[in-house]
This record gives sequence, C-alpha cells and structure tokens, in this order.
Amino acid sequence: MSAAGPGFDDLGFARPDTDREARLGLPEVVYGPGKTAEQVAGVVASLLRANTGPVLATRIEAGVAEQVRAAVPGAEHDEQARLLTWRRAQPRAFRLAVVSAGTSDGPVAAEAAAVAEAVGLQVNRLRDVGVAGLHRLLAVRDELAAADAVVCVAGMEGALPSVVGGLVGCPVIAVPTSVGYGATFEGVTALLAMLSSCAAGISVVNIDSGFGAAMAAHRIALRSRR
Amino acid sequence: MSAAGPGFDDLGFARPDTDREARLGLPEVVYGPGKTAEQVAGVVASLLRANTGPVLATRIEAGVAEQVRAAVPGAEHDEQARLLTWRRAQPRAFRLAVVSAGTSDGPVAAEAAAVAEAVGLQVNRLRDVGVAGLHRLLAVRDELAAADAVVCVAGMEGALPSVVGGLVGCPVIAVPTSVGYGATFEGVTALLAMLSSCAAGISVVNIDSGFGAAMAAHRIALRSRR
Amino acid sequence: MSAAGPGFDDLGFARPDTDREARLGLPEVVYGPGKTAEQVAGVVASLLRANTGPVLATRIEAGVAEQVRAAVPGAEHDEQARLLTWRRAQPRAFRLAVVSAGTSDGPVAAEAAAVAEAVGLQVNRLRDVGVAGLHRLLAVRDELAAADAVVCVAGMEGALPSVVGGLVGCPVIAVPTSVGYGATFEGVTALLAMLSSCAAGISVVNIDSGFGAAMAAHRIALRSRR
Amino acid sequence: MSAAGPGFDDLGFARPDTDREARLGLPEVVYGPGKTAEQVAGVVASLLRANTGPVLATRIEAGVAEQVRAAVPGAEHDEQARLLTWRRAQPRAFRLAVVSAGTSDGPVAAEAAAVAEAVGLQVNRLRDVGVAGLHRLLAVRDELAAADAVVCVAGMEGALPSVVGGLVGCPVIAVPTSVGYGATFEGVTALLAMLSSCAAGISVVNIDSGFGAAMAAHRIALRSRR
Amino acid sequence: MSAAGPGFDDLGFARPDTDREARLGLPEVVYGPGKTAEQVAGVVASLLRANTGPVLATRIEAGVAEQVRAAVPGAEHDEQARLLTWRRAQPRAFRLAVVSAGTSDGPVAAEAAAVAEAVGLQVNRLRDVGVAGLHRLLAVRDELAAADAVVCVAGMEGALPSVVGGLVGCPVIAVPTSVGYGATFEGVTALLAMLSSCAAGISVVNIDSGFGAAMAAHRIALRSRR
Amino acid sequence: MSAAGPGFDDLGFARPDTDREARLGLPEVVYGPGKTAEQVAGVVASLLRANTGPVLATRIEAGVAEQVRAAVPGAEHDEQARLLTWRRAQPRAFRLAVVSAGTSDGPVAAEAAAVAEAVGLQVNRLRDVGVAGLHRLLAVRDELAAADAVVCVAGMEGALPSVVGGLVGCPVIAVPTSVGYGATFEGVTALLAMLSSCAAGISVVNIDSGFGAAMAAHRIALRSRR
Amino acid sequence: MSAAGPGFDDLGFARPDTDREARLGLPEVVYGPGKTAEQVAGVVASLLRANTGPVLATRIEAGVAEQVRAAVPGAEHDEQARLLTWRRAQPRAFRLAVVSAGTSDGPVAAEAAAVAEAVGLQVNRLRDVGVAGLHRLLAVRDELAAADAVVCVAGMEGALPSVVGGLVGCPVIAVPTSVGYGATFEGVTALLAMLSSCAAGISVVNIDSGFGAAMAAHRIALRSRR
Amino acid sequence: MSAAGPGFDDLGFARPDTDREARLGLPEVVYGPGKTAEQVAGVVASLLRANTGPVLATRIEAGVAEQVRAAVPGAEHDEQARLLTWRRAQPRAFRLAVVSAGTSDGPVAAEAAAVAEAVGLQVNRLRDVGVAGLHRLLAVRDELAAADAVVCVAGMEGALPSVVGGLVGCPVIAVPTSVGYGATFEGVTALLAMLSSCAAGISVVNIDSGFGAAMAAHRIALRSRR
Repeated sequence: MSAAGPGFDDLGFARPDTDREARLGLPEVVYGPGKTAEQVAGVVASLLRANTGPVLATRIEAGVAEQVRAAVPGAEHDEQARLLTWRRAQPRAFRLAVVSAGTSDGPVAAEAAAVAEAVGLQVNRLRDVGVAGLHRLLAVRDELAAADAVVCVAGMEGALPSVVGGLVGCPVIAVPTSVGYGATFEGVTALLAMLSSCAAGISVVNIDSGFGAAMAAHRIALRSRR
Repeated sequence: MSAAGPGFDDLGFARPDTDREARLGLPEVVYGPGKTAEQVAGVVASLLRANTGPVLATRIEAGVAEQVRAAVPGAEHDEQARLLTWRRAQPRAFRLAVVSAGTSDGPVAAEAAAVAEAVGLQVNRLRDVGVAGLHRLLAVRDELAAADAVVCVAGMEGALPSVVGGLVGCPVIAVPTSVGYGATFEGVTALLAMLSSCAAGISVVNIDSGFGAAMAAHRIALRSRR
Repeated sequence: MSAAGPGFDDLGFARPDTDREARLGLPEVVYGPGKTAEQVAGVVASLLRANTGPVLATRIEAGVAEQVRAAVPGAEHDEQARLLTWRRAQPRAFRLAVVSAGTSDGPVAAEAAAVAEAVGLQVNRLRDVGVAGLHRLLAVRDELAAADAVVCVAGMEGALPSVVGGLVGCPVIAVPTSVGYGATFEGVTALLAMLSSCAAGISVVNIDSGFGAAMAAHRIALRSRR
Repeated sequence: MSAAGPGFDDLGFARPDTDREARLGLPEVVYGPGKTAEQVAGVVASLLRANTGPVLATRIEAGVAEQVRAAVPGAEHDEQARLLTWRRAQPRAFRLAVVSAGTSDGPVAAEAAAVAEAVGLQVNRLRDVGVAGLHRLLAVRDELAAADAVVCVAGMEGALPSVVGGLVGCPVIAVPTSVGYGATFEGVTALLAMLSSCAAGISVVNIDSGFGAAMAAHRIALRSRR
Repeated sequence: MSAAGPGFDDLGFARPDTDREARLGLPEVVYGPGKTAEQVAGVVASLLRANTGPVLATRIEAGVAEQVRAAVPGAEHDEQARLLTWRRAQPRAFRLAVVSAGTSDGPVAAEAAAVAEAVGLQVNRLRDVGVAGLHRLLAVRDELAAADAVVCVAGMEGALPSVVGGLVGCPVIAVPTSVGYGATFEGVTALLAMLSSCAAGISVVNIDSGFGAAMAAHRIALRSRR
Repeated sequence: MSAAGPGFDDLGFARPDTDREARLGLPEVVYGPGKTAEQVAGVVASLLRANTGPVLATRIEAGVAEQVRAAVPGAEHDEQARLLTWRRAQPRAFRLAVVSAGTSDGPVAAEAAAVAEAVGLQVNRLRDVGVAGLHRLLAVRDELAAADAVVCVAGMEGALPSVVGGLVGCPVIAVPTSVGYGATFEGVTALLAMLSSCAAGISVVNIDSGFGAAMAAHRIALRSRR
Repeated sequence: MSAAGPGFDDLGFARPDTDREARLGLPEVVYGPGKTAEQVAGVVASLLRANTGPVLATRIEAGVAEQVRAAVPGAEHDEQARLLTWRRAQPRAFRLAVVSAGTSDGPVAAEAAAVAEAVGLQVNRLRDVGVAGLHRLLAVRDELAAADAVVCVAGMEGALPSVVGGLVGCPVIAVPTSVGYGATFEGVTALLAMLSSCAAGISVVNIDSGFGAAMAAHRIALRSRR
Repeated sequence: MSAAGPGFDDLGFARPDTDREARLGLPEVVYGPGKTAEQVAGVVASLLRANTGPVLATRIEAGVAEQVRAAVPGAEHDEQARLLTWRRAQPRAFRLAVVSAGTSDGPVAAEAAAVAEAVGLQVNRLRDVGVAGLHRLLAVRDELAAADAVVCVAGMEGALPSVVGGLVGCPVIAVPTSVGYGATFEGVTALLAMLSSCAAGISVVNIDSGFGAAMAAHRIALRSRR
C-alpha cells in the first residue's frame, strides 16, 4: 500500500504496521497487555526506525516499563497513565479540555491527557466537577468554552457529558469509567448512559479508554482551523 | 390479622386485602393488566365496601375504564394516567414536585401526579427540564426547594435525579422511563444510571412506575411534619 | 444564561431551549416520538421565532409530517430519513463521507446524510461497501481520503469502521444499526464491536442514530480548518 | 451558588463541595475507593473547615483508616461498616429500623446503621429475620410498627422488603446485597426483585449500598413530624 | 428400545415417541406452537393408537383447538389453560396444591392445574395469596399442610415460593410468570429469585410453564406413598 | 481484484460483488430483509449477468417473491424456506444430513436443506429426532454415519449436536433455533449450549440461520474427497 | 408458631429457626459463607439443643471446619463436599441416583450425595456419563431405573438431564455447574439449558447447588411410598 | 456400542470413552481443569492402552504437566499451548492456516496450531494480520488461498473472519478470544460479531477455544480430497 515495500515489518511474533504514519498521520501505537517487555521493545524499535513521528506504548505495567526503557532509550514514562512515549510531538494549536467527574476517575483522565499531549495537543485538566455539585462545573464554564474539543471522563451514572454537551458546541468525546460498584457494572452503566445522552452529538469510546478518547481528539485536531 | 374477620374478601378469582388500610393507611390498589373489566369492578367494589379511604385502579385501558365506571359508580378517570379513582383523599399539607426531563416522559409523570393527588398530596408539575438545557432546571430551583419530596421522571440516560439530588435536601424518588431507543434498552439504562447516581440518598422505583413513586411519596407524607 | 430572558419558552407541555443556538451554534432539534403533531408544530414554531438558524424535527412518521407541514409553513420533508427541516443552513466547506455497509443500512445512513446537509455539511454518500467484498471499499479509497470526517454505518458484526479507521486519519464516527437477526441483538453486537475496535480513535453513537452521528460531525465542522 | 465564595475548595486533585451543607443540610460525604489516605484526609479536613455538621468517609479499608485518623484527629472508626466519622450529629427524634434477612447481610446493614447514627437518626437493628422463617419477622412486628422508616437489607432472592412493605405503612428503603452465589449474580437478582416488588411504594438503592439507604432515610428525617 | 418395533411412529413431518409411556409412565405430550392443526391431530392420533394413557396437547390456540377436536374425537378443551386432553387419567391419591400470587398469574396456574388433573392428580387451587398481604397466605396454611406437593406460581419479584417453602416440608415446585413490567423482564426476575431462594429444596421450572410444574408433580406422584 | 473491471456492479442503491464467484466459488447471495422487490430483482439480475453459477435470494416473504419472480424469470421458490433460486447447481458427490430436533424447528431445517441443494449438495432430511426420545436418533445412526457432514438444527436446550457429535466423526454444524419460550430467550440458550458443547469440534452458526449452516457445508464440500 | 416459645433462638448476631424441624421435618441448615467459625458453632449448638434431627453446615472451608469441630463435638467432615454434619439421620428406604456428566463436576455431585446421605437418603453415585459418549449413560440405565429420584449434575451445555429425563419416569432434579469457560458463563448456559429442556417435568436448582438438589430430593422422600 | 466390551473404562473417578476412536476417528481428548495430575495421568494411560491414535491433554498448567509427564512416559509438552501429547499422528495432506489478528491472541492461536499438528494437520501460522492494517492481511492472501481450511483467531471486535471469509472459499472457523477490556466483555463481543458476520458460511467455536477450532478442522480433514 505504501509506495515502497510491504508497509509492515515482520518480527515473527508481530507485524508492526510501518505504513500507518503515512496513512493516518501518526505511527501505530503499541498496546501493552499480553506482550512481554521484549516484544514491546521490539515493536517500538521497529516503529521508531520506520517512522518519524511519536511512538507510544499504552497500558504498560511499572515493571515492564523499566525493562522497555532500558532496551529502547529515550522514553518518557507517565506512571499514573501507564504510558511510555518516544519522540513526543511538537504542540499544535489545538486546545483539549479533559474534564473528569470525580477523583476516582483520575487514572483514566490521566491517560487521556498524557496521550493527547504526546501526540501534540494542548491539554487543560479540569478535575472533580461532577454534576451533584453543579456550581463546580459552572465555575469552569469559560475554560470549557475556550476548548477546541472536550473529553469527558465519568463513572457511576455517567451524567457529566450530557451536561457538558448542553453547555458547549465543540466536539465532546465521552469516556465511561469502571468507577463504582453494584449497578454500575464496571462501567457498563456509564457507557450506556453516555450513548443514550439527551445532548445531541456526543460520541463515546470504550470503558476506561482514555487512550481512545485522546486518539479521537487527535483525529479532530488534524482538521482543526486554529 | 385485623381484629375481626380474616382481613380479606374471597371473590373466587381474587382475595382483596381488606385489612390493608388498617395496616398501611391506604386501601389496596388494583393493578389492571391481566384482569377483565368485571374482575376490576369486583375488586374495587369489595375494597370500597371494606374500607373508608380512596380506592384506585391503575393501568386501565380506555375501553375497560368505561365498563368499570358503568359498573362501579363514582369513578374519576384520568386518561393520560390510565387511572380510575373513587373517594379521592382530602389534600394534606405535603407538597410533592413531579419533575420530568422531556415531553415524552409525560405519561409516566402524569401517573405519578394523578396517583399522588388521589391519595391526598399536593402536586406541583415541572415539565421538560432536562439537563441538556440546565438553565430550564435552574429556573425552577425555588419550586424544587419548596417541595417536601421530589419525584424525578427521566428516560434516555436518566441524569436528572443526579442533578436534582445535588440541589435539594428533601427525599428524591427517581423514576426511569422507557423513552428512547437503542442503548436505552427500554428504560434499563436510565434505571441503572439512577441506581448508580453520585448524588447521595436518591432512591429508585421500577421503570415507568409513576405509581410506585407516588406511593413511596405517600409513605413519606404519612410521617411529614407539615 | 442568555443575556436577556430566561433562555427558554414555556409552552405548558414543553420548554423549548431558545438559548441553545447561542450556546452551541445550532437551535435545539425536536425529537418526534411521544409528541403529537400539534406539540411538534408548537415547539418548531417557538424555535423558529427565537432563533435564526435551521430547525429540524427527527423521527417524524409520514402522517404526522403532513400535519406539521400544514401547521408550520416552509418545511422540507425527507421521507426515508423521517426528517422535517426549516431554514436549511448554507453549505460550509466541510466534506462528510457517509459510508454504509449494506443496502439494509440505508435508512440510517439517509438520516445521517439528511441531517448533515440540513445543518450545512457537504455529504458524499458511499453505499454498500461492506467488508466481505473488500475491493468495493478499496475502490472508494480516494473518496474517503478526501473527506473531512467519515460517518460509518453498519449492522450485523459492525466491522466496517475498523477497516475504514485503518485507511484514513480523519475523524471516524461509527453508527451501529439494528440490521440483522439472532446474535446481532438488534444492533447491540455492532455497537459493542465498534466500541471494541482495534482501530484507534473511532468514536461511537447510539444504535440507529444517524442523527447523532451527523450532530457529532457538525460539532467537528464548527472547528474545521477548511 | 452560596452567598460568598465559589462554594467549593480547590485542592488540585479534588474540589470538595463546601456549599453542600447549605444546600442539602449535610456536608459532602467522602467516598474512599480510588483515593489515597492523603487524599481522603485532605478532603475531610477541607470539609471540616468549611462546614459545621458531621463529616463521614465511607468504604475506608482498615490500613487507610489508621493513616487518616492519624492525619485528621477526632475520628471514630466503625470497622465492620468501614466508616470514619467526625463531629457526629446529635440524635434527632427519628427512629429508623434496619432489618436484615441473614447473618451474611451483616456488613451492609452495619454500614446503613452506622451512617444513619452518624447523621443523627436513632437506629434499631433487627437481624436475621428472613422470610423462610416468617415467625421471626412477625415477632418483631411491633418494633417495625414503631419505626419512622425501615431499611430492609437482603441478598439472595431479596424477598424481605415485599413482606415488610405489606406490614407497615412507613417508608421502606430496600438494599439488595451481593450475598449468595450462582443465580444471585452478586446482588442483581435481589435488586431486580426489589424493584419488581408487589408491595406498593418500596424504593430501592444500589447493591450493597447501606450508605445510600441511610442517606435516603436522612432525607426523609429532615421532613419528619416527630 | 421397546420390546417390539422401533418405539416411534414416522409421520414424515414428525416421529411421535410411542414408547414413552412404557419408559416414563405417561405418553408423549404434544407441544402446539409451530404445528398446524393437521400436524397436532396427526401426532395425537398416533399417540392414542400406540398408548393406553392420557394424551395431551398444550398451548393450543382457540382456532386450532376447534379443528383438532373435529379431527380427533373425544377431546376436552380447557380454554384458559389452552389445553386439549383425551382419555384423562383416573384420579390417584395425590393432592397437589396450586398456589398463585396474583390474579394475573391465573392462566399459568390454570395450565398447571389442568395438566395435573388430566394426568390424575387431585388439585386444590389457592388463588391470590401474594406475600404483600401475608394473612391471606397464612389463612390457607392448613390446606398447604395437607398437600403432597405444592406448585407455586408467581410473577413480579417471585417471593411466594420462599415463604411457602418455609411453611411446608413437602416438595415445592416454583413457576415464575411473565406478569409485570420494567424490571420484571418478562419473568426473568421471578425466575432468578426463585432459583436464589433462601428456602431450601425449592426447585424451579421454565417461565410460564404451568405444564412443566404439573409434569414435575406427576413424576413425584408416581412415587408417592399415599 | 478480478482480472478485469472493478469486480462489482454499481446500481446506485447497491454494489453487487460480481467478483465473488471467482474468489469463493459461488456468487454473492442476496439477503432479502430491508430490500424492496425491485432492489432484490435488480441485484439478482446483476449477479446472473456477471456470474455463471447459482443465484439465491434468502428470507424473501411470499408477496415479494411473486414480484421478483415476475421481474427475473427462471426462479424456483421454496415457500417454507423463504428461498428463491436461479440456475441451481448440478448435484456434487457430497452428502449432507440435515437433522432437526423437533417439528417446530422445521422452517430452519428447510432453509438449510433448500440452500444446500441449490448450491449442489445432496441432502438427507432427518426430522424430529430430539434427545428426549433417544431411540429415534439411534434409529438413524447409519444415515448419520453415511453423511459427509451433518447440520444439526435444535431449539430449546440445543442438546442435539452434543449427542450427534459423539456419534459421528464428520463435520457437525450446529444451528440454534428460536423455538421455545421463557428461558430459551429466542434461541440464545440453544446458541450458548451449542458453543459450550462437550462434544469436540462442533461449530456453530447464528440463531435460525439455516442459510449459514448450508454455506458452511458448501465450503466444506468444495474440499471433499468424494 | 410452635406450640411453646417464639420458635427461634436469639444469639444477637443470628436467630436460628428452632421451629423449622417441626414445620418442615428437618432442622435449619447452616450456610457457612460470611460467618465466622464462632458464629457457625454458635448456630449449630443452638440447633442441636432445640431439635432432635440431623444438623448440617454447608460450604465450610477447611480451616473453619477444624475450628467448628473443636467447638462442637460429634461432627463428621466431608472435605470434598465442604460439609459438616452432626447426628446424621438413619437411612430411609429412598434411593437417590446422583449422576454427573464429567469428572470436573465432582465437587458439586459430592455435595449433593453427602447432604442426601446425611438426611437419610440412600445414594448411588454414577460418575462421568456425559452425553458425548452415550453408551456410558446407557450402560447405567438399569441403575437409573431403580432410583426413586435422580439428581443430574452437569456443566458446559447441561444436556444430561434432557437425556436422563427421557429415560426414566421418576423425579429428575437438574443441577447446573460452573464447569467450563467462555460461553458457559460460569454455569448460566447449563442453567438456561436445563430450564429449557425438551424432556417434560425436569426441575432445576441454583448453579453449583448440590445442597439444593439434595434438599429437593429430601422433600420428595418425605412422601415416598417405599 | 463397540463390537466387544462396554466401550469405556471405569476408573472410579472417571469413565474414559475407549470406543471414541472407533466412532469418531480420534481418541477422547482429556480436558485438564478440575482434574488432579493423578486423574489426568490415569485417564491418559487408559486411553493409550485402549486406542492406537494420538492422545492429548489440554489446558494443563505447567506444574501439573511435569507430574503427568513423569507418570506417563512419551509426552511432548507445548507450554504456550498448555498441551500434552502422546503418539502424535502422521501428517496428512491437509493444510490449515491459523491466522491471528494481534500478538495478544497468540496463546489461543498456539493451542489451535498445536492441537491441529498433533492430530496430523499441516499448519501454516499467520500472525498479527488485524484489519486495521489491511495490507498485512492482503500480503498473505496467497497463503490463505493455498489452505484447505482457515482458523481465524481474533479478540476485541472480532472483524478478521468477516474479511477472510470474503477472500477465500474454503471453510473458515472463527475463534473469538478474551483479549481486550471494557466493551469486549472477555470475548463476548468478538463471539457475537463472528456469529453475525456478513461473510456467508463462517462457523464459530467457543471463546478462547483454539482446541475446538482445531477439532472442527480435523473433522473436515477426515473428508478432505487432498
């Protein structure tokens, strides 16, 4: 598909998609679970060789991260976000607000923010603005209005994106989290609530996928006017 | 259980609980589905004879309602609420706000309001105050603050009770409705969202059960200080 | 919230959010189900009065549409999309590809396209390019690459957005449809598949919600660089 | 929203809702999971400063509790209820019966009772009165009749609230527990059974949420006539 | 398997199991749905020829019943139970109580009773003894104690078998019904509740299967001491 | 992908995959639901033009079938199977047994058999051999042993493929049907049971998909040794 | 309810139902999970004092068992069944076959057998007779025919009771087990399959509840003719 | 069923089906979970004695494997596949492609490949060819076309079999894996997607069942023409 070569690297255990940067504007991102440190390092090295942009490895546990960093120099490690990054992108003129409903949603919001920054977005973190204390959300209304896109992170009943989606006209990407117990069903309730939102034009990514939200924002940023 | 008699009437096809008014402060309420007009009329007549308070029949379709009214005089019929009532209670000093998120939630809110009024509560209806246009809800904040209890009726993502529960300290009874499509799963999403609410002390009744919410409010009213 | 007035209209049965155009850049959209023709007409008239932009009513059955058009002049009616529109927006320089997997997904794709055009996007419809005949999709690859955003409509296993998301770097909004039987569970399987996509940055809207996808695209278009 | 100040405290990682006591009659309650001991202590300290009423932290594991108590003096710790409390409320004239079906439901009943006492309700604990030995429940009938509200805690098939709701006219708040195995589905069966109760006016809170039930009772108590 | 012949009849569209009476003590029962009147009649005729005991056809709609009765003489038709029977069994000394929670559970209880009588059990019908009015159930306690087995029919939360199972030591067969709405999920909630019963030794059959319960009782009766 | 041309036909509303016969050995099959008679006819005509093998249209309702047959000559119509076929294949030396558990499973078995015959397999229909009368199944054991593959059609508990899979070594394709009520959940129970079979090497297709099973058999037949 | 005394013992943490032996013919059985060794011992001692029949404690982990045996002399301990028994019943003339599909179903079958023997039934264990090797089951057909009741234990697709129910006319109690992975959903698939069985008159108990099946058999045995 | 003897071995704890090789062409395979090393060894020894073909034990944890190998000589152990094999089959002329979507699907693909080789199929492993980088899949198109059957292993949205099924006409057996998080529901989403595939004639086995797919392929190979 790329002009030259097969567009992937064959490492035996994996075929890194070396052509993805050309097609999508960003190299393939490495998903950590189910891979050994050696496998992560191998794929990262292949992607660094074949591309020029930022390379990321997500959901990397602390022990694995140490090994990978030793094997492939130049990594930055965000522990809360469980993210390793190489060759981080220059910031572009796109402002992303990452809004979270409660303190417990922190790690998912952290992943969204860290990934977004690594691929070049400017991130404004707005924490603990859940709808049961509406004035906390209304207090950051100007910051929301200044954003080019908003990532809304919420667990439990997942009501935050409905309220935010009624306050601002920019893209709102909702991330349900597995925070809560019982009838929250590990994020399913928040997921369904967000998909059923009465605020028009909200779109939704997988449970706990701060990564997915940041990537959706990145796709938008590639087309942004600022 | 009652001082005299078995505490129920044996009609062959049914055993109306004639003792319930003594135990709970309100006669048994007749649930319409699965009963013929003759059966509804028979049970209502039995309950009117054995008790002194209001008698209600819920979820009565229009055709059945006509037949029952002919058979048991004195009924009032609320079509939207699908409710028949006899011997409506005197209003007591208890103010119930029935708040609904959207126009489509109307029939469920109507049932809640009609049942509540029939058993003696004073009802204030606040319609179409969904969270995607927050200022509509904030505009009725004083009315909410004046209520002794709030019934919150919402379908889709069911976010309204979370916001209302953060605005007022009185009892909030949430009613999920089957309004919506796809991921709303005929009210299941709203139900789970309400059970998972981040606002403390919200309690929930069955999907589309305006009746259940009104009865929960009635139980509270029996103990109210006003 | 708006500079003057309460920001909504009180029609008794409904409170149209007349301030929404100011906040979000588009007037409130009227959701048809559960409303009478008179109610739809009333809300539409209120929104036309209080705003200057396009007014839409969605999921309007044919009979209701006739009545509404008679009551509020100036409507255009798209029967397949079940959409009524007044004061359609001028086209802006934003190209949306609406891609559908099979012929049966047609009505949902039609709603997405019709809503998008009514709010000012330029739409390119690409029909019947399901993944079981991959060459059909690859044949429209240039058209996909030319789009500013892609709406992907698919039922059954919902695989199309994963493939499209690997071909283009622009925003991809996935719409699961209720097409299929048995294990498709009326769109749930496609919904979950799209949320679980291995292609990064896909976001998802409710089952059969062509409307939701078009509105998500509109939010993106407000920020587009073209 | 409050007369002075923003109504919340900004701790960086959290925004305690310092205005909640004014709005709802009780300070915000701290939810432990997902927070470090330092974070819990920080929020508690902020709430103690800004309010005058009782401050509670729920679902605090034993190790965390020790650290928080060391950091914020004056706490009482109920280990079975996993509850920390500061500045407990004076008892008010409101009698809450906390009824549980089996010995295994103990921890959830303990949380309900401990939270209720901390916010000023008088609690009567009635343990192990499941419906398979009905005489045990009938033996406490007078105690139930004396209550201003009843919290019913049950796992497995969750039948207890239906029977209690048929015996007393006061508010009945049902709490499903995750006690049982197989078809109990960690409390889901009890939850659904309680929502489907044939006893009118029962309301329900989340699985295992003794806290939620106590807070619902507190909302009722604020309006009680005694 | 039988001493002579293949043990079944080959009608082309069906193979009636003519050997079943020899193996199980009762001829095969014909399940109506999905069969034409001709097919039902054909299978019934085959079974009447090859066996000596009662032959039943269940879930037969009224129109089909008329045709089948015309084709195969000697049938009795119970409309409420949707049951056709030929060569009904002599009553044996086995007393079955069929207890139902509400009037709406009537058709399922009717099927249980009618099938049981057709295969020779003595049936005592106890209607409308739901747990929200416990005195109604306690009033029939002697009748329950006199039974050799109890079939408990209940919809909504399905609590009745738990209470009955705690009152009597004989076999209790629980039948969930699809009565109710919302969180009853067409009988699933009652089914799960019955399977999760805290009363030991309750066994459960399929939703709405009065037939299955009667057959389970018949299996027990074959071994009864009376 | 094909040597010449794009490999599909563009009809505006659909893109028939005219290259499929070259890739898979069989032309594309037309799925009826959601298509008008004109659309079905149009796609069929396109496929007949571009290919040389059999063309099928599945799930065609009776009224639509008449219109399509009038528009595209040469069709055969199997009403029970809801199937239209053109240019049926010559029989090849591959024997498929289509085994069904009960009479009610007939239409699904009919679709499997009719599709299989249309694409050239030799079909042996074995009806009503459910596991509750095992001798009926054992009586056809030789016929099963003579088959090159077996399609097992069963609803309710879906046990048939487990028993058949233990009797023969050839490929067994299981088709769950939506026959039954209550806990059968419209085929979901049979589906899950078949996927969980203790007989090794059973594979499963979608609920009620006689078509899918026949096509799986056709894929096998293409490689068969006979 | 009993002639003298309240019919229960109040231990503070529990109310043993000392009247149950009089009502049901067997003392209450102690369910271990969620109770400390001291609590189990306390309830057992109370039941031994107040009754004359066998006392059982189920689902007792090994460590707890040791402590309980030390505290309450006379126990027998079946480790595989996780069962403690005191004062085991004399065998009565009732033969129970406990049939299991696979070796992995062993612990559940062991619980069924051990409980049944402790309450006085004669048990015949028939192991590893799954339906994929039908001849193993047919080889024990005479043993099945000699039983007064059969308990059928099976995981995975749970087909065994359907086959057994077609072979014998006595009561068949089905126990689904959580054996298997993936689509077995920890016993749910087997549970649903058993409830959907095409063999008439099968009844079902909770997943993994060997105890429940034994108790259902005991209820039958109380009425047996042998 | 076999000419001589009962067709099974009775080991007390298990009844190995020694007749299966005669019926199905392959000895029974031993499923490890829930069996001790002694039990696995006992069954394996019995099967080796009574049959002549390959004997396999699946899902054997490392520690157990060591013990079994010591007890029954001649085993080969594939750790990634968790498989023990004795008397491996001679390769037959049947080429199976085992295609996997991502590196994390490796262990399931390894089980499929290892079992297939042990029973005599020739396996070609094609790893990491997920649909988000389509060129990786198209690059192995010739290898797919050369296969007699394809096993497709994929987690997350499980789209791979739909694409493969559109490229090749041979049998395609889909294996969903539990790879992923959130809305993947441990393989359920991939399972449902595969069952709903728009590619005709795909059949599906249980989640993570590389074993089941290999056995389905073996059934096909027994009939293959090569």
